[in-house]
Amino acid sequence: MSSQLETRPKPAPAAVENPLQNEARLIVQGVDQPGIVAAVSAVLGDFNANIVSLDQYSSDASGGRFFQRTVFNIADLPLVKDAIEEELAKVLGGDLDLTWTLSESSKLKRVAIFASKSDHCLLDLLWRHKHGELEMDVAMVISNHPDLAEEVRGFGIPFFHVPADRTNRAEAEERQLALLQGNVDLVILARYMQIITDDFLEKVGVPVINIHHSFLPAFIGAGPYQKAKDRGVKLIGATAHYVTKDLDEGPIIEQDVARVNHSDSAQQLARRGADVERLVLARAVEWHLQDRIIRDGNSTVVFR
Amino acid sequence: MSSQLETRPKPAPAAVENPLQNEARLIVQGVDQPGIVAAVSAVLGDFNANIVSLDQYSSDASGGRFFQRTVFNIADLPLVKDAIEEELAKVLGGDLDLTWTLSESSKLKRVAIFASKSDHCLLDLLWRHKHGELEMDVAMVISNHPDLAEEVRGFGIPFFHVPADRTNRAEAEERQLALLQGNVDLVILARYMQIITDDFLEKVGVPVINIHHSFLPAFIGAGPYQKAKDRGVKLIGATAHYVTKDLDEGPIIEQDVARVNHSDSAQQLARRGADVERLVLARAVEWHLQDRIIRDGNSTVVFR
Amino acid sequence: MSSQLETRPKPAPAAVENPLQNEARLIVQGVDQPGIVAAVSAVLGDFNANIVSLDQYSSDASGGRFFQRTVFNIADLPLVKDAIEEELAKVLGGDLDLTWTLSESSKLKRVAIFASKSDHCLLDLLWRHKHGELEMDVAMVISNHPDLAEEVRGFGIPFFHVPADRTNRAEAEERQLALLQGNVDLVILARYMQIITDDFLEKVGVPVINIHHSFLPAFIGAGPYQKAKDRGVKLIGATAHYVTKDLDEGPIIEQDVARVNHSDSAQQLARRGADVERLVLARAVEWHLQDRIIRDGNSTVVFR
Amino acid sequence: MSSQLETRPKPAPAAVENPLQNEARLIVQGVDQPGIVAAVSAVLGDFNANIVSLDQYSSDASGGRFFQRTVFNIADLPLVKDAIEEELAKVLGGDLDLTWTLSESSKLKRVAIFASKSDHCLLDLLWRHKHGELEMDVAMVISNHPDLAEEVRGFGIPFFHVPADRTNRAEAEERQLALLQGNVDLVILARYMQIITDDFLEKVGVPVINIHHSFLPAFIGAGPYQKAKDRGVKLIGATAHYVTKDLDEGPIIEQDVARVNHSDSAQQLARRGADVERLVLARAVEWHLQDRIIRDGNSTVVFR
Repeated sequence: MSSQLETRPKPAPAAVENPLQNEARLIVQGVDQPGIVAAVSAVLGDFNANIVSLDQYSSDASGGRFFQRTVFNIADLPLVKDAIEEELAKVLGGDLDLTWTLSESSKLKRVAIFASKSDHCLLDLLWRHKHGELEMDVAMVISNHPDLAEEVRGFGIPFFHVPADRTNRAEAEERQLALLQGNVDLVILARYMQIITDDFLEKVGVPVINIHHSFLPAFIGAGPYQKAKDRGVKLIGATAHYVTKDLDEGPIIEQDVARVNHSDSAQQLARRGADVERLVLARAVEWHLQDRIIRDGNSTVVFR
Repeated sequence: MSSQLETRPKPAPAAVENPLQNEARLIVQGVDQPGIVAAVSAVLGDFNANIVSLDQYSSDASGGRFFQRTVFNIADLPLVKDAIEEELAKVLGGDLDLTWTLSESSKLKRVAIFASKSDHCLLDLLWRHKHGELEMDVAMVISNHPDLAEEVRGFGIPFFHVPADRTNRAEAEERQLALLQGNVDLVILARYMQIITDDFLEKVGVPVINIHHSFLPAFIGAGPYQKAKDRGVKLIGATAHYVTKDLDEGPIIEQDVARVNHSDSAQQLARRGADVERLVLARAVEWHLQDRIIRDGNSTVVFR
Repeated sequence: MSSQLETRPKPAPAAVENPLQNEARLIVQGVDQPGIVAAVSAVLGDFNANIVSLDQYSSDASGGRFFQRTVFNIADLPLVKDAIEEELAKVLGGDLDLTWTLSESSKLKRVAIFASKSDHCLLDLLWRHKHGELEMDVAMVISNHPDLAEEVRGFGIPFFHVPADRTNRAEAEERQLALLQGNVDLVILARYMQIITDDFLEKVGVPVINIHHSFLPAFIGAGPYQKAKDRGVKLIGATAHYVTKDLDEGPIIEQDVARVNHSDSAQQLARRGADVERLVLARAVEWHLQDRIIRDGNSTVVFR
Repeated sequence: MSSQLETRPKPAPAAVENPLQNEARLIVQGVDQPGIVAAVSAVLGDFNANIVSLDQYSSDASGGRFFQRTVFNIADLPLVKDAIEEELAKVLGGDLDLTWTLSESSKLKRVAIFASKSDHCLLDLLWRHKHGELEMDVAMVISNHPDLAEEVRGFGIPFFHVPADRTNRAEAEERQLALLQGNVDLVILARYMQIITDDFLEKVGVPVINIHHSFLPAFIGAGPYQKAKDRGVKLIGATAHYVTKDLDEGPIIEQDVARVNHSDSAQQLARRGADVERLVLARAVEWHLQDRIIRDGNSTVVFR
């Protein structure tokens, strides 16, 4: 940091290497059967990998589903990655008939964030990203309202206004897909108040995470906070989940609640709800970016 | 505790007086309008009452509903109670058109607990009662199964076995009402697994508190814990509420949650749920016994 | 929002009146004795006040301390405020010997926020203020580092850089006091990492709220998150409190916690701690601004 | 349950076999280095083990400590257990220099519970044990007071009264050790209000779990609930930890909190604390019994 340092010759790029550049994450899943952990370990052993962490879970000791997340280091990962994948395909893809994905920890996932007018979830994600809390590249923010353009661009992130409502759904989704396809690995709905069609989900081809308010019990339809108040609800919460064809019924990633009482108005309930939403969404996104979440039917396995 | 003490003359009654014997709780509710607090204070002032605590809440500054809980001490309360009630009737019942109840803190509410086979909520209430945590007289436990008789009677509490299922609802409720009417001020459903009819609710004439499992969102119907697991739910909870004609839809008194994860089986979810149920039910009962809860339509005001 | 509206004549000022302009909050405290509630009610009744909410608490039924918060509406409050205060002084200040403050709900408290390099608490307060969640005027932000100037000024709020460390404490506090005195009603330390001297506290003459990390148990000294990790702590928390002469030992306003586990690094513990800090500080500030907190020795009464 | 069943021939033992009889748990720990997971997997693979769950954690990717919990099934476990252990000793004990323990899931840990006069933690453990929630054999309850004898024996569990206070510490511990040695695998201090000496810890030779109240921050010494109240504490908690030579400073297993407010007396704070204590202790014991906790210096790794 002192000026003397400036006169020294710059270090060669290798010297400033990313500490994660040799780290990879392997997710394996399929029908449980004896020998899977050993088979995976053998492959990694062949490449002298050092396992940093390994989480494994079987939904049932006999005949259940198998899930494994392995984080490992390997010297010169970029040079041997292809060879590892070839070997994994041979070992895991044969009789074991397993599904697997291998991702380099240093390759950040590219993310698009959808928003409408509410900024609490969106700004929280951008603030955490700026502070190095979320391992992602924010490729773009897409909104059906122009209101948040300036704030988003203040973070140095492209903002696209794609007007969308019930009258132009197909056209809006077409424009959104044109922006997204090939450019992102994840879509985050940060209080995006429009319906996402099955067609969009299929075409976008990447996971979509949504956040919505939650209560015990659920209050269906419009004005949920008022309904919650009218019932005397004492806890309000938020649920982050993957979006599936059944709107708001997809696999749950994370949930949390905050305490309220009778003196809180429906508006104050909504504010408390917003506080919970941004925390829950940030945790769900963080875990997804670290490949900690495996979908298991309409449920999730979250390794942490 | 030593035998020597037994030979001493008994103290005069005044020396062992209940510290609460001169304490009363006044609940006032109705349409909000200026002057109610002053009117109540004036009445209490006329009797030289010392206000211990006063909580007041209006649902809306103009035209809302008014709720007030006042705890006060008065010398020789039993001697002047009738006079206070007469005065309250005159002042609050006239133009102000308010509803009010006055109860002596030293007069314990008489309670019946309904149970089935699960004992976690029932035993928790009895254990707390034994330790002086709940200001109540447990008049009886009624169960549609004989299983818990011995444990209940071990606490010195009458246990009545009234077989009840869908085939004999009317007859069972008739027997229950015969046991209850005139004998209790509150009925607690401590995991009582039978439907309570509107007819029973009307005839029993006292508040009925129920506890049931809760989730974000609700999972309707049978096997809720399995459904919650199949959705990947991360929080399971419990709700204590007053029973109304709409089963499980009555005013909520208290709620809480516990955290679970994918490795918890549906059975473990149910156990965590049971842990929350007994805590939530105990809090709801404690507050009811202290006249801290006022029903406000299908909601509640909980002063604490 | 349509241009047609623009051509209409502007409404007269009376039509856009602040709904709170006739609302006031009265805080009364002192030695408990019979008749205080009635005395307060009588004064308010004389002015035809409508009590919106009233919370009263006595630390002990006999000989305890008395606390009351009353929110009321009165027609033309600004015109009669002086008269009310005169009457209160007569009634409460005499034999009852009570302390009281009367504040108009529409008169926002003027606030200075102190920060250092961490922005999570500061930005959260500014964001909530911008969204109308905190009833305050942010008069200025004072920091001992220039880093956050641009972000603060982006909210339209004055930012003053007052370098401060252990070498220039007296001079720095003198500069701070010159900025503050007469200009603010509250100072918020939003992760301000410098010691506040007793001298400063005395001279500034307004309440000072601080936020700091908390654990079960406390970990004293430097590197608390590492110490917490080394002990296997499972919950990390935050405490908002009023600053008194005993550093970090003042009356607690609010606390909360977040769950962590062994796989979280000390850095991740600190991030979770930061998430809790900003929520806890925001709640403490909100309640202070609404006059919901009364100091009781080194403890607090929080009416909500 | 009907008498008819009694006349049927008893099923052959194989038909009622314990589903866990072929399940074992392997805990491995030591200095992290490449190849450990593979080495363990290879050994288990040689015996055709089916891995049910595997959790692995390294405190640091390079040069950290390694922890692994593996649950697996093996046909005829009791017959091959010796052979597996021999192989593990060869593979893990050599160059890898790892520590390991292998335990059969069907072999319940034998537990002694220490109590004094408070029954909330003790009864909660016994109740959970009776309901099949805790995989343990309760060998005995030891108390320095006779008060709880009847309740404990009502559960069919031996109760030993060993008077203990500061005047007879050595003698009391000698008597306790005579009861414990060789008979138990775990000692639980369920609100046992006596000091445990280093000498006792050394001689008892099994882990000792303690539960104690916790606050943010800690309140040292006598009367902690009153001190907490005097400071305005809003959360009270409990910590379960392993007992080490530094009293109450051992590795933390689990923690939780409950919310309180200014109207709660110190006694009510203590009751809320007791509610948290029993939940936290039950969770800590459950996880210990399932070999989910590995001590890591003065910290813990809790795999769940």
